[in-house]
Amino acid sequence: MINPLHNTDTIVAVATAPGTGAIAVIRLSGPEAISITNDIFKGKDLTKQASHTIHFGTLRDEGKIVDEVLVSLFVAPHSYTKENVVEISCHGSDYIVQQIVKLLLKHGARLANAGEFTKRAFLNGQFDLAQAEAVADLITSDSALSHEVAMKQMRGGFSQEIKRLRAELVHFASMIELELDFGEEDVEFADRDQLRTLIGNIQLIIRELLKSFELGNVIKNGVPTVIVGKPNAGKSTLLNKLLNEEKAIVSDVPGTTRDFIEDEINIDGITFRFIDTAGLRETTDKVEAIGVERTMQKLSQSSLIIYLFDITEVTAEEVQVELDRLNPKKLPIVAVANKIDQAAPEKLVAFESIDNLVQISAAEGANLEDLKQALVNKVNLGKLNTQSQTIVTNLRHVDSLNKTNAALDDVLNGIGLGLSGDLVAADIRRALYSLGEITGEITTDDLLDNIFTKFCIGK
Amino acid sequence: MINPLHNTDTIVAVATAPGTGAIAVIRLSGPEAISITNDIFKGKDLTKQASHTIHFGTLRDEGKIVDEVLVSLFVAPHSYTKENVVEISCHGSDYIVQQIVKLLLKHGARLANAGEFTKRAFLNGQFDLAQAEAVADLITSDSALSHEVAMKQMRGGFSQEIKRLRAELVHFASMIELELDFGEEDVEFADRDQLRTLIGNIQLIIRELLKSFELGNVIKNGVPTVIVGKPNAGKSTLLNKLLNEEKAIVSDVPGTTRDFIEDEINIDGITFRFIDTAGLRETTDKVEAIGVERTMQKLSQSSLIIYLFDITEVTAEEVQVELDRLNPKKLPIVAVANKIDQAAPEKLVAFESIDNLVQISAAEGANLEDLKQALVNKVNLGKLNTQSQTIVTNLRHVDSLNKTNAALDDVLNGIGLGLSGDLVAADIRRALYSLGEITGEITTDDLLDNIFTKFCIGK
Repeated sequence: MINPLHNTDTIVAVATAPGTGAIAVIRLSGPEAISITNDIFKGKDLTKQASHTIHFGTLRDEGKIVDEVLVSLFVAPHSYTKENVVEISCHGSDYIVQQIVKLLLKHGARLANAGEFTKRAFLNGQFDLAQAEAVADLITSDSALSHEVAMKQMRGGFSQEIKRLRAELVHFASMIELELDFGEEDVEFADRDQLRTLIGNIQLIIRELLKSFELGNVIKNGVPTVIVGKPNAGKSTLLNKLLNEEKAIVSDVPGTTRDFIEDEINIDGITFRFIDTAGLRETTDKVEAIGVERTMQKLSQSSLIIYLFDITEVTAEEVQVELDRLNPKKLPIVAVANKIDQAAPEKLVAFESIDNLVQISAAEGANLEDLKQALVNKVNLGKLNTQSQTIVTNLRHVDSLNKTNAALDDVLNGIGLGLSGDLVAADIRRALYSLGEITGEITTDDLLDNIFTKFCIGK
Repeated sequence: MINPLHNTDTIVAVATAPGTGAIAVIRLSGPEAISITNDIFKGKDLTKQASHTIHFGTLRDEGKIVDEVLVSLFVAPHSYTKENVVEISCHGSDYIVQQIVKLLLKHGARLANAGEFTKRAFLNGQFDLAQAEAVADLITSDSALSHEVAMKQMRGGFSQEIKRLRAELVHFASMIELELDFGEEDVEFADRDQLRTLIGNIQLIIRELLKSFELGNVIKNGVPTVIVGKPNAGKSTLLNKLLNEEKAIVSDVPGTTRDFIEDEINIDGITFRFIDTAGLRETTDKVEAIGVERTMQKLSQSSLIIYLFDITEVTAEEVQVELDRLNPKKLPIVAVANKIDQAAPEKLVAFESIDNLVQISAAEGANLEDLKQALVNKVNLGKLNTQSQTIVTNLRHVDSLNKTNAALDDVLNGIGLGLSGDLVAADIRRALYSLGEITGEITTDDLLDNIFTKFCIGK
């Protein structure tokens, strides 16, 4: 299934982001990583140096200096891939990086495919498949929660949970298969009641894991959020206010300026993605009159609704009617009264009948923190304990868990119907197979390709 | 003048380009670089490890894991800055990078200013000022020649030349100043004829260096090039053809995709920057009718002219008239006959009277290599030997060389007029001062600020 020795070539890729930085890092992995680098390096003899050491020198192309570099050596198996690994830290010019990569190619390395370093690390047993996938999640993590969940998965939290379930099933599978060896004698090594209880427990955990995906998906991909309301309610003012605050926050450490995403804000580690704001952000909102159909379409794509109204123009009753009408699917909805600075105090009192109403002035930026808190509360992270709870964030894992669950249903049915041990064993094996796909105890080339081609090059 | 001990704080910055890569590198320098990192690192005790070693572990913020990292240690004075330096190689998520930098700030580091690492390296005697400046040039180098010239300067080629000139002058300056001590005795320790000869030789070299800037500037900043010609001559077709070829070339190594610059092509290591092509690239050229004034304005900004004409529509005489009219300043000009695929052979013969004519078909891409070669020939790199010749690429150096030259003129005048030794000595000192500014033997805070604030952060 897995052959740790099937990589005999040496791969190279740029490991840092493209563009101009002070330095860039080029990474090689494979049996010849050190000797290829040594061929073009003038300095110490790299083939005679210890692992985890750094060496200053120049890279040369037929005598001509390409760059002054630092070379870091990781001697197999003490490296990320468990192969020989070299990291070349050079001046951060794309031109220089390109010259060095070409030079390494000339001396026998080949360009790495996307995710190939991590794939080799997996194939050589550095970590399992769910952990490998978490590496990619970690690199793209852009909020406190997505980072935390990816980190936990990378460090094996999720894998342990899956392996524990699998180990329990393996025990029963082997007991039942033992019965088959004594086929004629009608013995039952595997206690059917015990098996039923075990499977019930495993399904409970799987269902909990599947449920966690709702949250995991929110953490990884954000909460699709829509702002609806009458023209002139102040939708664009509110959106711009929220986005501008975000814009001010994202770049507070020089050199770590994250790409500012036009329609996202991050509150308490949760990303809210605003849907269909194309017209909203530019206009002053006055001309925009969204038709019913358009509004319903926006709502159908969202998981959270902000209903914004101008408190000086409507009654509490009208708002309540609108809230009910807008939300037939009972999505989480936050009612927001705008322009409170222009409303009489008795008017504000009249709106106390509306559940969880947030009163703001978008123009003056008043009570925006209340609104943010209301949004976070709606995502219902109250139950979440990312430190202890295992959260599924990967659609592939959801798919495998569902397949496992279905196979376990079949096992239960089989036992209920008094099916023979070999049929029950086949269903247990099927459940084991699906569980094993998650951590990579079971893999196919297609599965691996599918996973690793989504990685960036150099990882 | 220079106090190597005046940096007692520890600085931190991201050293790699922003954006998502497999890894990012965060760099610290200063007395506390290792101990601050050790405060947040779980793994070996970093304060007890040897220089040039790499250590795997986790970074933690009050027990919570921020990332799994590799930490590279460089113990003073064996580092780029000659201070303690730590490089943290972390997962390449901007979010993670930001968290780590913030964590280091919390533990006592401060954010580095632009160029501050290299400034410290200079102040601590790692290299001189011209070499430090070459580091920035190297990072932004985007062609073979700009890379080669920057590399040579960084490795001290230019500095040696300047220091040699300076050493010769210093000898004479001290001889003349010795005369001053014997002021009443009217002795001449410094032979005036010898001094005159020496200064003549130095000025010869300075003039050659100043002349090299014309080329140095081309190498560093490219050749401003303009394409002129009648509407429908095929200007946009030609430009698009050249740019598309370039576009195909720049990204041949994944992960080193250089930003494709819309209006530049690189031929044999020389960058040609096309001026004022805004309208040209999109249009089919048919509607564009550049007025005389507009054309002349374009020509005034350029160093090289491509005059393109449709060979089927004009006579050789008309072209010759136009070539003379367009080029009163006698700039290098390349005459290009387009649409040769549509012209009769005898027509082509008729144009042999025009000097250095290139005959192409832009639409069919015929003879574009001839055109490229003609452009390169016009830049006149024939004389250039970048390996042995010293080339000035920095306007600051040009300024200092001019000042030196003027001071040396004054020395010669002073000797000619038989001025007293103290006056001659003052002029020599002035020349020495200006020469010393180039390599940083003479510096002021303003000068340093001016140089290093142009660096990127993290270098």
